[in-house]
Amino acid sequence: MTQPSLQQLEQHDAFIHRHIGPDAKQVEAMLETLGVASLEELIEKTVPEAIRKTDELDLADAINEVEALAELKDIAARNKIYRTFIGMGYHDTITPNVILRNVLENPGWYTAYTPYQPEIAQGRLEGLLNFQQMIMDLTGMELANASMLDEGTAAAEAMAMCKRQVKRNKSNVYFVDQDCHPQTIAVVKTRAEHFGFEVVVGDVEKDIPAELFGALLQYPGSTGRVRDLTDIITKVHEANALVTVAADLMSLVALRAPGDMGADVVVGCNQRFGIPMGYGGPHAGFFAFREAYKRSAPGRIIGVSVDSKGKRALRMAMQTREQHIRREKANSNICTSQVLLAVMSAFYAIYHGPEGLKTIAARIQRLADILASALQQEGFNLAHDSWFDTLNITVGAKQEEIYQRSLAAEINLRKIGEDALGVSLSETATLQDVSDLINAFIGTEHSIDLHTLDSEIASKGSLGVPASLVRDTEFLTHPVFNTYHSETEMLRYLKSLEAKDIALNHSMIPLGSCTMKLNATAEMIPVTWPEFGKLHPFAPVDQAEGYAEMFRQLQQMLSACTGYDAVSLQPNAGSQGEYAGLVAIKKYFEAKGETQRDICLIPASAHGTNPASAMMVSMKVVVVACDDKGNVDIEDLKAKIEEHGDRVAALMVTYPSTHGVFEEGIREVCDLVHQAGGQVYIDGANMNALIGVAAPGQFGGDVSHLNLHKTFCIPHGGGGPGMGPIAVGEHLKPYLAAHPVTEVPETNLDNGTISAAPWGSASILPISWMYIRMMGKQGMKQATEMAILNANYVAKKLGEHYSLLYTGTNGFVAHECLVDLRPLKEASGITEEDIAKRLMDFGFHSPTMSFPVAGTLMIEPTESESKGELDRFIEAMATIRQEVEDVTSGKYTPEDNPLHNAPHTLEDVMSDEWTHSYSRDIAARPAAWLKEHKVWPAANRIDNVYGDRNLICSCPPIESYAE
Amino acid sequence: MTQPSLQQLEQHDAFIHRHIGPDAKQVEAMLETLGVASLEELIEKTVPEAIRKTDELDLADAINEVEALAELKDIAARNKIYRTFIGMGYHDTITPNVILRNVLENPGWYTAYTPYQPEIAQGRLEGLLNFQQMIMDLTGMELANASMLDEGTAAAEAMAMCKRQVKRNKSNVYFVDQDCHPQTIAVVKTRAEHFGFEVVVGDVEKDIPAELFGALLQYPGSTGRVRDLTDIITKVHEANALVTVAADLMSLVALRAPGDMGADVVVGCNQRFGIPMGYGGPHAGFFAFREAYKRSAPGRIIGVSVDSKGKRALRMAMQTREQHIRREKANSNICTSQVLLAVMSAFYAIYHGPEGLKTIAARIQRLADILASALQQEGFNLAHDSWFDTLNITVGAKQEEIYQRSLAAEINLRKIGEDALGVSLSETATLQDVSDLINAFIGTEHSIDLHTLDSEIASKGSLGVPASLVRDTEFLTHPVFNTYHSETEMLRYLKSLEAKDIALNHSMIPLGSCTMKLNATAEMIPVTWPEFGKLHPFAPVDQAEGYAEMFRQLQQMLSACTGYDAVSLQPNAGSQGEYAGLVAIKKYFEAKGETQRDICLIPASAHGTNPASAMMVSMKVVVVACDDKGNVDIEDLKAKIEEHGDRVAALMVTYPSTHGVFEEGIREVCDLVHQAGGQVYIDGANMNALIGVAAPGQFGGDVSHLNLHKTFCIPHGGGGPGMGPIAVGEHLKPYLAAHPVTEVPETNLDNGTISAAPWGSASILPISWMYIRMMGKQGMKQATEMAILNANYVAKKLGEHYSLLYTGTNGFVAHECLVDLRPLKEASGITEEDIAKRLMDFGFHSPTMSFPVAGTLMIEPTESESKGELDRFIEAMATIRQEVEDVTSGKYTPEDNPLHNAPHTLEDVMSDEWTHSYSRDIAARPAAWLKEHKVWPAANRIDNVYGDRNLICSCPPIESYAE
Repeated sequence: MTQPSLQQLEQHDAFIHRHIGPDAKQVEAMLETLGVASLEELIEKTVPEAIRKTDELDLADAINEVEALAELKDIAARNKIYRTFIGMGYHDTITPNVILRNVLENPGWYTAYTPYQPEIAQGRLEGLLNFQQMIMDLTGMELANASMLDEGTAAAEAMAMCKRQVKRNKSNVYFVDQDCHPQTIAVVKTRAEHFGFEVVVGDVEKDIPAELFGALLQYPGSTGRVRDLTDIITKVHEANALVTVAADLMSLVALRAPGDMGADVVVGCNQRFGIPMGYGGPHAGFFAFREAYKRSAPGRIIGVSVDSKGKRALRMAMQTREQHIRREKANSNICTSQVLLAVMSAFYAIYHGPEGLKTIAARIQRLADILASALQQEGFNLAHDSWFDTLNITVGAKQEEIYQRSLAAEINLRKIGEDALGVSLSETATLQDVSDLINAFIGTEHSIDLHTLDSEIASKGSLGVPASLVRDTEFLTHPVFNTYHSETEMLRYLKSLEAKDIALNHSMIPLGSCTMKLNATAEMIPVTWPEFGKLHPFAPVDQAEGYAEMFRQLQQMLSACTGYDAVSLQPNAGSQGEYAGLVAIKKYFEAKGETQRDICLIPASAHGTNPASAMMVSMKVVVVACDDKGNVDIEDLKAKIEEHGDRVAALMVTYPSTHGVFEEGIREVCDLVHQAGGQVYIDGANMNALIGVAAPGQFGGDVSHLNLHKTFCIPHGGGGPGMGPIAVGEHLKPYLAAHPVTEVPETNLDNGTISAAPWGSASILPISWMYIRMMGKQGMKQATEMAILNANYVAKKLGEHYSLLYTGTNGFVAHECLVDLRPLKEASGITEEDIAKRLMDFGFHSPTMSFPVAGTLMIEPTESESKGELDRFIEAMATIRQEVEDVTSGKYTPEDNPLHNAPHTLEDVMSDEWTHSYSRDIAARPAAWLKEHKVWPAANRIDNVYGDRNLICSCPPIESYAE
Repeated sequence: MTQPSLQQLEQHDAFIHRHIGPDAKQVEAMLETLGVASLEELIEKTVPEAIRKTDELDLADAINEVEALAELKDIAARNKIYRTFIGMGYHDTITPNVILRNVLENPGWYTAYTPYQPEIAQGRLEGLLNFQQMIMDLTGMELANASMLDEGTAAAEAMAMCKRQVKRNKSNVYFVDQDCHPQTIAVVKTRAEHFGFEVVVGDVEKDIPAELFGALLQYPGSTGRVRDLTDIITKVHEANALVTVAADLMSLVALRAPGDMGADVVVGCNQRFGIPMGYGGPHAGFFAFREAYKRSAPGRIIGVSVDSKGKRALRMAMQTREQHIRREKANSNICTSQVLLAVMSAFYAIYHGPEGLKTIAARIQRLADILASALQQEGFNLAHDSWFDTLNITVGAKQEEIYQRSLAAEINLRKIGEDALGVSLSETATLQDVSDLINAFIGTEHSIDLHTLDSEIASKGSLGVPASLVRDTEFLTHPVFNTYHSETEMLRYLKSLEAKDIALNHSMIPLGSCTMKLNATAEMIPVTWPEFGKLHPFAPVDQAEGYAEMFRQLQQMLSACTGYDAVSLQPNAGSQGEYAGLVAIKKYFEAKGETQRDICLIPASAHGTNPASAMMVSMKVVVVACDDKGNVDIEDLKAKIEEHGDRVAALMVTYPSTHGVFEEGIREVCDLVHQAGGQVYIDGANMNALIGVAAPGQFGGDVSHLNLHKTFCIPHGGGGPGMGPIAVGEHLKPYLAAHPVTEVPETNLDNGTISAAPWGSASILPISWMYIRMMGKQGMKQATEMAILNANYVAKKLGEHYSLLYTGTNGFVAHECLVDLRPLKEASGITEEDIAKRLMDFGFHSPTMSFPVAGTLMIEPTESESKGELDRFIEAMATIRQEVEDVTSGKYTPEDNPLHNAPHTLEDVMSDEWTHSYSRDIAARPAAWLKEHKVWPAANRIDNVYGDRNLICSCPPIESYAE
């Protein structure tokens, strides 16, 4: 008997079978349930022939985890890690090891979903509330949201909000301090351009225009100056305009808070609070503001509310703002934020506490003072007479010489203009660094006794910070920031929070469109390699050859997966991708002289971010109807095109549709738009149903964004980070986002800048690289097929108990399915929310509720779930269906049934009295598997309305914890 | 106002404050409670002046986590990682990433304690049961224990057990196959020497003596031969002797099981099932045996029992064998096993499943076949005509040339004798490796088409394994090995097990003498660096310079901490340290010609392992009485010395005593023994109360073992790994353990070999290095002081509710305290077990029960617990005291009270009927903090007796899982 070949035994494709849940036997059983003979037959019957891909994916063969990690390690090794004093918003930092291992490297944190279901998300909600409190305290503001994508977009969002807030001020002018970080200026200018605002960049002392709607200041200035902003702010306020201050978080530990100087909004980035630089991201931007703006502030705000038993509980406040964006009114499209990074920085602050942070800030300050003093002794002049951590050293003609000498010593400085150099010190800086810097500046071994210098400075207080700007207000006084300072205490605090949440390490999270698939460990491992983590985004590109190579390869992979010609990696969330895509379309038409094209056609079924993104590029949204199958109504599309003629700029369409169906007419839809001279934007949210099976770049798309945190395995992190690169056809390639500091190859600065960092959240791109590399051409296609199989299996089995909405021509769905609960609600009064909360009792996270159709659940199991897990979910849903029946039949009353009372907490089942008409076991352990493993909802059903009416977004005082 | 100096701001000692739980304010409060003004005063009143250390610890100053990791990384970088084909029981392997991150790098697994309290340890008990099942299946044996320290000691334990089993056979001869691994032979010979057995090492074909009590065979042979052992085993059995087969786990996947050939015991090592080589360990040895030996087998056995509600539950079977070793009868002292590594290898088998393992084994086999065939083509002869993964290639005079050529290509081979080379292939081997090996052998680029060769071999089946030895029996058929093959399923399985257990990430584990202190993340990080993990223990020493340097530094550090002159790092558990120490004493007396010294004096309060270790070196144990304060009764000691005169070899004494007291008379005790010509062995179990405060090497000890997994921060791993190096005075230094393969500097082979690897579990030594390096001289002393403070605080507060046993002269305890429950039991019938189990309801792991005094709890809080955590524990104990009172007073009946019914499970509190006289909340959430975070015991009180009477040590059939 012949044995397998060595090639077979080598199992280079081993990862495919780790990523995909069902094994061969399970696949067979599911195919049988569906009545098809093979996966191929299923795909033939599901994906319209017109778009079905016939050629192979242009990807390499699969390699296994060991091989891929070795290959990527070789690439990463091409990055050079120099000591970096560039500053400009990015600083080396120390991630406390207990946080590194137990949060960033822990699937209990990184695989969680956005906390839309707060009863099973109290852990990370507390983390986010801590983050808000930290930001409020440090900025001196009344409220803060639970993070933005980066400092640049936070500043841009602040500009838009200021415009919204000063309605009576009709000025279109926005002033920007020239000493803002250049990437911030670029992002703000791009946003302003497409909103139609005029930006004036200038000197705050003399260039502030008389009429303006807002101003952006940097504190301390990008080149280091620390100045009192009070008078400037007052002046802007007198023009009935608002002021945003972009502030450095670490400096706020030592400096007077911008809130105390009258700032209306304070934005910035949490990076230096323990988040690796990662060549630009991901980090959490922050956004703090006055109470008055709470209804118009962008992003997510975590608030305190109560549950149905009156117990305090957290949830996302004013959540409907986000999930049900008022489409035509939106002027922010932010959706994903940076939860994982936000909570990490809050934990950093908790671990250090206010005293620890003060020591860190004082150390940075002292080193800067020593350096300043030494350089002055050596005859250098400083451009500013104040500083916190950043010096602007006038070097005249010696700029290049000193810069090169530093490089030779593996030290990165910032070039400022033609005659100055910037040095910015961070938490990791040492006296040795300062000594080496002095040497680099003077070109020889210095002979200054730095310890003596230190004593002199210590006796004076501080050299760089004016006395009037020394912080004298307390911060982080809440007990949470003053309790967990030993590693043991910190570890237990982290663990106790984690234990409250359901993440993918417990059970399936079957969220429609959000694609909660496996985030494999091998994919996560490179994220925390120092070769990727310790690189400054503005380091000279020859120090980042590893990144450059990884980008090139990933761009090729993503092109292959989508059928497009080029990829921009800059947008750091899906929403930013949409925006970047529309900007590219707009620029394309500008180049063609077709500036009249200002209509964006959007089907009624679209994601809420689509119209919001269109508004942000000043396009008018025209809604295209859907037919009763959920497909784009082609007749209506024709009518709208007819009506708007050469004003049609774009159609934004999701494919497969948000209804979970492969529309047969997609090619025709695209053709119609193209015939009208418009561009087709295919929303990539559902790419998981396409790769290897159909390519949007081939069936009619001009541009798509890709949610790398969905289809390409970047974990959701409890609500971010994500990544939203865009893929475009050749004709749009000249219009991809550029960057003002680091050149992005083949881009043009006129295209504008979308994100603060040149390649967005660069340090999580290895996750997608690893995924595609390990799956290879076979695996990527198989994943799609299996996602479709799993969805159809779930649909078929649920169809025995529920009505399903929307299927394709042959009765199959795509990679997700919609369960219609409206008939049940009609008959029983049981709502989709009741069912969503009841699923928690079974240990499941609810599917997507009421999107895209109210009264439905949208279920996407992904390819990573085994048949066993699908069957558990189906059993839960079947049990629930029977419970609904029991309400309809009168066995349960509408007021007392397991659905209405869901979720059930420990508190409930441990009460001495039990007055319900069902048992405690039915309440909380309604399925057998719950006897083996149960995650308890930490709260009863949470009252959103109460919380929104009584908005509290800070940590509750400790007394309120008392029972 | 003067600011702090830069030096102060630099916080090089930051780690001290992360490691030590209480902050300055808490320390002050605790001192006040104790009525002392300062820590110094407490130490003065606690530690006898006679032994108090006056000089500083000879350690460097503290450095912080970043600095220490950088320093150790530099050291580690001096190790060179070559491709290694040495074999001899160690092979490169792939730790599945999901297991690496979620078990080995996860405090939920590595900080757990030995599962003596099974109700809160069902997760790791299931992991261990899986391990036993895996070993039973692969070896073809009826039972297996839950791991041994390594293959060498497992073989030595097997020898001892065989001797016990064949009582009527009076032979003292033990035969050892000369083709056993040399380190196994060395360990067995050392053990035999001290038991007084005669070892015959020889050829199994001709050298087996007619009279013998047992034999050890290796399968496959160390040099690779695969032979049918049936006839040899039959022959040994005919001599009324037993056979132990040392087997290779991976080969058993492909080869006929030793159990099928008649083996009585099968031992080996799990290393190549996913455990890094780590320069020798830690790995789990295994020990499989016939049912008949179940009462005399060494080590821990996990068994299935039932809980008080009749539900199946796991626990350590026949536990009393271990904890209450029958002192004078013991001939094994094994205590710690290798739980963390054992469960990891079981997870490896679960993740791959039997089919995956077969593929891996087949790949290894194929590569070996290709290599064999190619080398034969090139004119080399193989010494054996059978093989699995290891070839013995006759190279004659070319040995050195080929060996050096390989080294130049960064390839390590094994030298066999003068004229042969060994090549052993592992899971990580590739065809490229095989090709490179061929080149190294022939000295030029070969021209063999290896793929063609592969096809030829595939068509034949296998070249190396005789058809009669191909495995044809199934293994790993239990569902647990056939379910969790996707990463998602595996992750959830791991998480569901973890969720059942209490580890240090949840709450304090106040185990007396076991010192469950912080295992800091920074200490754990280097353990999984490849620089430490991927080194073969027999790699040429010039490839291990990093390890050598780390060993030297750690030896110096441990000498400084103990006051001794030299340290041996070989013993890989405390028990092995005791044994090694006694062996050194014995060798010392042999050298002095005082071989008549065969008495070991042991106080009544000693750890059970002490007498067991003494028995293993054929010393006679003479018990010395303790006085009513728990101190050594000096008069009785004098009397015993008087009685035994120059037969006194040693006194083994624990200091501070197992009663948690600094005995005032320790110097006198030591002097008395020395005056009698004996040696003093100070058991290092309680070193956590000494470092920096008193040094055993200075107050009278000649030798101590150190439990690195207690005092020096190696985590307990759920019951191992540990490390038990010994520190000795100058005069004992010539007698430290040597190694037959890799020379241990300054040792002599005549001293014998204690563990299989030259430096024991080398890869966890970085944990202790990091700890001592980061704490520095100040921190190490402070830890001791704080451990004493914490213990005294707990003692003082508990003293308000309970009687305490034993305090020192001034009323203080050392680093632990004993609570006497006997009076309460008398009055109420409530036992110490009731209280231990009731503590689980509060979320705590019980302190040590009934050691060293029956009816007591021994509490050691360690320095890492904050006052907050201590207060929680004290509150729990106070509440329990009141509950006992409520039984005494009649409020509760003896049959129905929260203590008797503890622990309470979810099952209990969710039952529809509640007939208890206390509420559900009192049952399961008797303290406020439990409302925030509760870990549920997974079982009601487990019936040990039932399980021991009905011993089942394999995974229960799946039907039994059905409700």
